[in-house]
Amino acid sequence: MIDKLVEKIKKTEAPIVVGLDPTMKLIPPQLLEAAYKEQGETPEAVAEAIFAYNKGLVDAVCDLIPAVKPQIAMYETFGIPGLIAFDKTVKYCKEKGLMVIGDIKRGDIGSTSGAYAQGHLGHVTIGGKDYRGFEEDFATVNPYLGSDGVKPFIDICKAEDKGIFVLVKTSNPSSGELQDRVTDGRPIYEWVGEMVAKWGEDCMDGDYSNVGAVVGATYPEMGKVLRKIMPKSFILVPGYGAQGGKGADLVHFFNEDGLGAIINSSRGIIAAYKEEKYAKFGAEHFEEASRAAVIDMKEDIASALG
Amino acid sequence: MIDKLVEKIKKTEAPIVVGLDPTMKLIPPQLLEAAYKEQGETPEAVAEAIFAYNKGLVDAVCDLIPAVKPQIAMYETFGIPGLIAFDKTVKYCKEKGLMVIGDIKRGDIGSTSGAYAQGHLGHVTIGGKDYRGFEEDFATVNPYLGSDGVKPFIDICKAEDKGIFVLVKTSNPSSGELQDRVTDGRPIYEWVGEMVAKWGEDCMDGDYSNVGAVVGATYPEMGKVLRKIMPKSFILVPGYGAQGGKGADLVHFFNEDGLGAIINSSRGIIAAYKEEKYAKFGAEHFEEASRAAVIDMKEDIASALG
Repeated sequence: MIDKLVEKIKKTEAPIVVGLDPTMKLIPPQLLEAAYKEQGETPEAVAEAIFAYNKGLVDAVCDLIPAVKPQIAMYETFGIPGLIAFDKTVKYCKEKGLMVIGDIKRGDIGSTSGAYAQGHLGHVTIGGKDYRGFEEDFATVNPYLGSDGVKPFIDICKAEDKGIFVLVKTSNPSSGELQDRVTDGRPIYEWVGEMVAKWGEDCMDGDYSNVGAVVGATYPEMGKVLRKIMPKSFILVPGYGAQGGKGADLVHFFNEDGLGAIINSSRGIIAAYKEEKYAKFGAEHFEEASRAAVIDMKEDIASALG
Repeated sequence: MIDKLVEKIKKTEAPIVVGLDPTMKLIPPQLLEAAYKEQGETPEAVAEAIFAYNKGLVDAVCDLIPAVKPQIAMYETFGIPGLIAFDKTVKYCKEKGLMVIGDIKRGDIGSTSGAYAQGHLGHVTIGGKDYRGFEEDFATVNPYLGSDGVKPFIDICKAEDKGIFVLVKTSNPSSGELQDRVTDGRPIYEWVGEMVAKWGEDCMDGDYSNVGAVVGATYPEMGKVLRKIMPKSFILVPGYGAQGGKGADLVHFFNEDGLGAIINSSRGIIAAYKEEKYAKFGAEHFEEASRAAVIDMKEDIASALG
């Protein structure tokens, strides 16, 4: 699966993933109003508006980028209707030729991780027929439970040609409380990076492995070290834009082949219409604002990478 | 919320939670057949059978125990129909007077953790009206992202009188790969235990705090240490029964007041009908097998606690 992502990045010349992380405050008001009119002021209506929002965004940017990353929490917050919007979003993105990274950050003991892996990357067999719960291409995975919590995901990556990104060094301010603690001479995030590199060894797909890592743009020096520890792993880099990461911070996340990293921006793209720079589009033309923001992000990253 | 759990534990004399972790292999065949007959061999039918299974179990044991712990992965594996069964299970358990610990192991950066916390323990407001996504009383939380990933859960615990159990030392064989690493003279799980104790300080509810911890029955010596580090935190103890933890291992998870821990058993209870000891009930009477297994578990723990 990572090889397909590499191809798409080359084709679009954009190592970029757009985070489809809708919140009620970000949804353009006309979409909410239209949904309320049809279904009343209910979670079902908000979920419908979220899907309409995502659809507009995807239609506007799908020729520019290789992938999207819906954050399932933003859907789960609305219960079942929200998760139905998540499911529809994943399917619609794939119809439009985008790859989908499910930002689900799951992780549990072995058999339970297996159930998550089946639900998001694999399938269940009922009466001799296969059914898929959700249908992401990649999922993010939490490593706190150790290798027996990650292995079931890797097994399904192998069986179904899917991929994962394991949380190594997250972009948030308090990520260091556990991840930076030094043990046996090195911080935890380096040890997790070593595990990611090892897990990836027998999960290669072209030049890269289907076991990638999450490393925040907000920690570029650590990204530089982790790039070397996991030379064959793709790094999914959140934290660009709204969280403070800049184009210039990103250069060390990439390998010399110009590959090896994919940079996520969520609010900075999906809510571009709310920013002064793109305010001229207005909420009515939120899609065009997002398209302009993607083009600017591509340029920012391209110029940083030289 | 923890005070309500304490009351229920005292009333039932059972520091026990039953894990509602259904898998296709565990569902009694007659329930699957009945659902297939009605809805064909589909995920919807399996979800219906799961709910019927849970309903039977809950009806049979709800007078004996204070709480249940549905593992959301087992439902998520079937996609939307599975999650509808999860939602129905949570609501049904509450109708029957049981407290519900959502075993969701969520955790993300601040705003995203907030969305999970809202969805599982809190509410969203739409058109001036409050809606709840899922409706658990407690949720399990992964601490790998540090305090800004946990705090949004705690804020909602305070606002809505709910509770969480933070993963400290998990029951699985590889939990030590990260959790046992020694840093500044102590293993990671002890540092997480210190954080749990601190987070709980301003979240007290009676004698205990609404911020609890998960510590596996499979690591009794570590449980003993953690009990002292977090004297005011309830410990949710998985790993009893099928995973190998025994009654005698559990004594150190409790405080001198006989409280402070709640022991989970999943397969050992819900699939008791498959064990030799309870085989006489047969799949047809799976509920009675589970009831007998709960009574035996109560006795095992009571005798271990002296």
